[in-house]
Amino acid sequence: MDKNIPERVESLRGYMRAHGYSAFVVVSSDPHSSEYVADCWKSREWVSGFDGSAGTAVITLDKALLWTDSRYWLAADKALEGTGYTLMKDGDRETPSIVEWLRANLNAGDVVAVDGTVCSVVEADAWSASLAAKGIKFDFAKDPFEELWEGRPSLPLGKAEIMPEDVAGESAQSKIARLRLALKAEEVEGMLVTMLDEVAWLTNLRGNDVEYNPVVVSYMLVTLDDAVLYVDERKLTDEVRGCLDAQGITVAGYGDVWQALKEYGKGTVLMQPSRCNAAAAKSVAKEKVVFRDSPVAKMKAVKNEVEIEGFERAMLAEGVAMVNLLHWLKPAVEAGGVRELDVDSKLTEFRSDDHLFRGLSFATIAAYGENAAIVHYEPNEKENALLKPEGFLLLDCGGQYSCGTTDITRTIPLGPLTQEQREDYTRVLRGHISLAMAKFPHGTCGTQLDVLARQWLWQAGDNYLHGTGHGVGHFLNVHEGPHQIRMNNMPALLVPGMTVTNEPGLYKAGRHGIRIENTMIVTPYREGEFGTFYALEPLTLCPIDTTPIVPGLFGDAERAYLNDYHRVVFEKLSPFFEGEMLEFLEKACAPI
Amino acid sequence: MDKNIPERVESLRGYMRAHGYSAFVVVSSDPHSSEYVADCWKSREWVSGFDGSAGTAVITLDKALLWTDSRYWLAADKALEGTGYTLMKDGDRETPSIVEWLRANLNAGDVVAVDGTVCSVVEADAWSASLAAKGIKFDFAKDPFEELWEGRPSLPLGKAEIMPEDVAGESAQSKIARLRLALKAEEVEGMLVTMLDEVAWLTNLRGNDVEYNPVVVSYMLVTLDDAVLYVDERKLTDEVRGCLDAQGITVAGYGDVWQALKEYGKGTVLMQPSRCNAAAAKSVAKEKVVFRDSPVAKMKAVKNEVEIEGFERAMLAEGVAMVNLLHWLKPAVEAGGVRELDVDSKLTEFRSDDHLFRGLSFATIAAYGENAAIVHYEPNEKENALLKPEGFLLLDCGGQYSCGTTDITRTIPLGPLTQEQREDYTRVLRGHISLAMAKFPHGTCGTQLDVLARQWLWQAGDNYLHGTGHGVGHFLNVHEGPHQIRMNNMPALLVPGMTVTNEPGLYKAGRHGIRIENTMIVTPYREGEFGTFYALEPLTLCPIDTTPIVPGLFGDAERAYLNDYHRVVFEKLSPFFEGEMLEFLEKACAPI
Repeated sequence: MDKNIPERVESLRGYMRAHGYSAFVVVSSDPHSSEYVADCWKSREWVSGFDGSAGTAVITLDKALLWTDSRYWLAADKALEGTGYTLMKDGDRETPSIVEWLRANLNAGDVVAVDGTVCSVVEADAWSASLAAKGIKFDFAKDPFEELWEGRPSLPLGKAEIMPEDVAGESAQSKIARLRLALKAEEVEGMLVTMLDEVAWLTNLRGNDVEYNPVVVSYMLVTLDDAVLYVDERKLTDEVRGCLDAQGITVAGYGDVWQALKEYGKGTVLMQPSRCNAAAAKSVAKEKVVFRDSPVAKMKAVKNEVEIEGFERAMLAEGVAMVNLLHWLKPAVEAGGVRELDVDSKLTEFRSDDHLFRGLSFATIAAYGENAAIVHYEPNEKENALLKPEGFLLLDCGGQYSCGTTDITRTIPLGPLTQEQREDYTRVLRGHISLAMAKFPHGTCGTQLDVLARQWLWQAGDNYLHGTGHGVGHFLNVHEGPHQIRMNNMPALLVPGMTVTNEPGLYKAGRHGIRIENTMIVTPYREGEFGTFYALEPLTLCPIDTTPIVPGLFGDAERAYLNDYHRVVFEKLSPFFEGEMLEFLEKACAPI
Repeated sequence: MDKNIPERVESLRGYMRAHGYSAFVVVSSDPHSSEYVADCWKSREWVSGFDGSAGTAVITLDKALLWTDSRYWLAADKALEGTGYTLMKDGDRETPSIVEWLRANLNAGDVVAVDGTVCSVVEADAWSASLAAKGIKFDFAKDPFEELWEGRPSLPLGKAEIMPEDVAGESAQSKIARLRLALKAEEVEGMLVTMLDEVAWLTNLRGNDVEYNPVVVSYMLVTLDDAVLYVDERKLTDEVRGCLDAQGITVAGYGDVWQALKEYGKGTVLMQPSRCNAAAAKSVAKEKVVFRDSPVAKMKAVKNEVEIEGFERAMLAEGVAMVNLLHWLKPAVEAGGVRELDVDSKLTEFRSDDHLFRGLSFATIAAYGENAAIVHYEPNEKENALLKPEGFLLLDCGGQYSCGTTDITRTIPLGPLTQEQREDYTRVLRGHISLAMAKFPHGTCGTQLDVLARQWLWQAGDNYLHGTGHGVGHFLNVHEGPHQIRMNNMPALLVPGMTVTNEPGLYKAGRHGIRIENTMIVTPYREGEFGTFYALEPLTLCPIDTTPIVPGLFGDAERAYLNDYHRVVFEKLSPFFEGEMLEFLEKACAPI
């Protein structure tokens, strides 16, 4: 527990009293709906002491509560001890949702406040409607931590860099021109781009403001006539400014966006309600705002030929690093003393051999044995299991390369396995391959293909509760949309050029966790009497361990696919190895 | 062509002028969103001469147009010749939608009218909004054909009958009590039931008002306190009235519903916007109407144990009739002179052997050779192909039995097949079986399973453009919701007790058509660490021809499933046969 917490909560209550608020909701987001937020936006951590990636604090004049999901119940319980906070176990049947709790514990006329810059339009609307039904008001507050949080980190000041056109494959000017065509098709006159990866893609800028995601904290307002980037100008070198200028992009200060929205001169502006912050939407005259999905997300998702070549180059680098790691791993574990974090650092060391490597694309999950059953487990100084020559190591990791982003998971047997482990591994791998072999007509979305990856698990009464696949950015965010492969309805169509992961898994609490993931790309397949069909091709190049496979649970078609995949992996990676390492790779890629 | 058409169109124009309408839209529906409508509601046929099941006529002061989909282009072209109508090929890329056409051809201030009793709330809202954007008004007219259509058939007067409780498995009183609980859960005080099969299920009434669907034309208004059936009282015998009374159901005249809606005394009433007619919704004070999915549809879809026993009994009757037909078919075709309609009448003859048989559940599709490639082909006196001892006969048929409704499709080889026919048959059958073998967790909808039936076709660049499965009523409509298995998003969950068809197909224009369909039921499968899982069990009992199967395109698991299915079919149907017929059945069910 952090001893300062009660004092911080009290300071917020002072602010609340001064403004007439009965409750204040402190969320975990930033103004850009980012997955990873810069330190200056970690207000919920500051006010509660809980540092998990997901969680919402609710402060009333006499209570303090923190909602977080099952991944974090244990950690939150520890962090909140003695702070006066009540842990609300989100996802537990007994736990009311935040809005249910507010409806039950506040009175008509009370005011609930949230910082409108870190809350999406959709969230704000849902809250507002639900509270209004009980006569409770919902209000946007100015960020209270601006005055309360002493020593608050400043906005990040990472230097921005230009991704050269021979890496991006398309100039910013061309992208903006295509966006304008899309806006015309949508019959709108402008768009506020709030997602940081969308700004990065559109401008061909990359940055260093946030961990893992090479983005620049900024907004962009594109109209049919101009394109203005709102960014702290200290991040831009003269060279970068020159490049932006040459692409027809004007630069203004990050904070200037608010005035620009208030004075927005065109007739209409498109905003994505699930991602745009409510304060931004509220800044423009209501009748001008058109809520739609982001056309930039759709454009960014489809990779051009140069981007695809970049991905292929990045996958070679990753494959070489992974083979080096696999080669090192088992003897090291047998020799003793290898812990989960050692796997992470060793892999980063191998990745660093490639001069295009720029860092990790997310925190490595190296989870041994039962730790792997905790879906979002990350080893740290306190929890850092010793690897033994038995059972599985689950390794989910990815790199940022200046030519592409990678995301791979392998489940590696370190020694003897139980029959259950073998069977579970076989069903997960079979599902991965069934999805990888899918062919599908134009008009198909990920939801329709999801069952292919799950079907063998379902036969056994097993399942995994995360999605099966997500898009991957091009030297950008490892998670991107709009397409996904998952059980919930995700209507974005899969079309050629989209990257998408294929990562079924199985997690048995207290026993083991398995996940097998390749990043794939949608490719053309056939054209005929029944229209256009697409296929999935793996981009990831790394052997998949075949030793745990239970033949009776595997199919002939899956076996043929796996052998073919390994043939390609060997062909592409073998030029990078020789001698004993080459033999190791050959053995790992041997047909079964 | 019908010579009276120009005169009828002119009479409608007279009506339009008198009311200030610039365009009148004549749809194909009835006030209950029925799939099959009684003759009195065939206004579109009367005004255009086109008698296909789908089509919409649009009459302006100087033009007459008819939109219909590709199934009917040929027939509509013939029917409309010389009538002054323009055929609008719905689904053709060049053809504007009706509303697009109206927007382009009318002027601001013009009024488009439709009979609000035969147009759903959703349709009306969409039209109204789209036309309003161009300044065109959209108005509900009183049914003009009431005065224009001389000799219009009167409302159907089929006698209603009570389905006994030992067949229905639940009293009407109990169903209404459960509906009231559902209404309370939805926080509404009443519901207008407009769908005829929903009224039939809720009251345990069956009728004879519409072809194929044993329903009674009626509305029902259920509140927390009362339940009123609006129906022409001449349909009810004293016994039926007594039964309804005993279940707490009050009877009022069919036309009295309008006054009852105007005077609706409760605070709120639930209506299903996609199915409820716009006039009914408009009759109730706007603030009282709550638009939601129908809770009755959800309740009706889940069959109780008695209903399931009834289905099993009906499937035995159907299986026996089908085996008799299959036994008769090939020798008869070889002997010569058998036409498509003969198959229909022979099957009906065999079905009639069972005393519970009440008629067909839809018009039999007996389609030979290339006719089977026309998805909704029905033979008639003019088109009635001679069956030859080669290629496929596609037979899609179903019966109404007083204990259940059936729906089955078999594709029957009548002699030598081409390699393409064999391969196509194998892929369709493999998809049917892949879906039949599916296991899935609670929370799964049909959209998620659809790919299982299509995957082998997609591998070959083939597809079918209809849904894979629909619910089947219990001595009710052969098509029912809310669940479906299809590519489009259908969010209704599949839960135990639901019937659902499994009917993949493949249609190659000018060559052949294949479809294989069993009606199935969702059953419990497993309960465990990952929740509750369900399975699909076939209800339909009839051999599936194994001779066309190409072994290389089939899987071991599918082979085992098919052999197991045939073992069950033989076990259940063999007691009904002896001698040569029993040998025929045994051969048809032999393992492969």
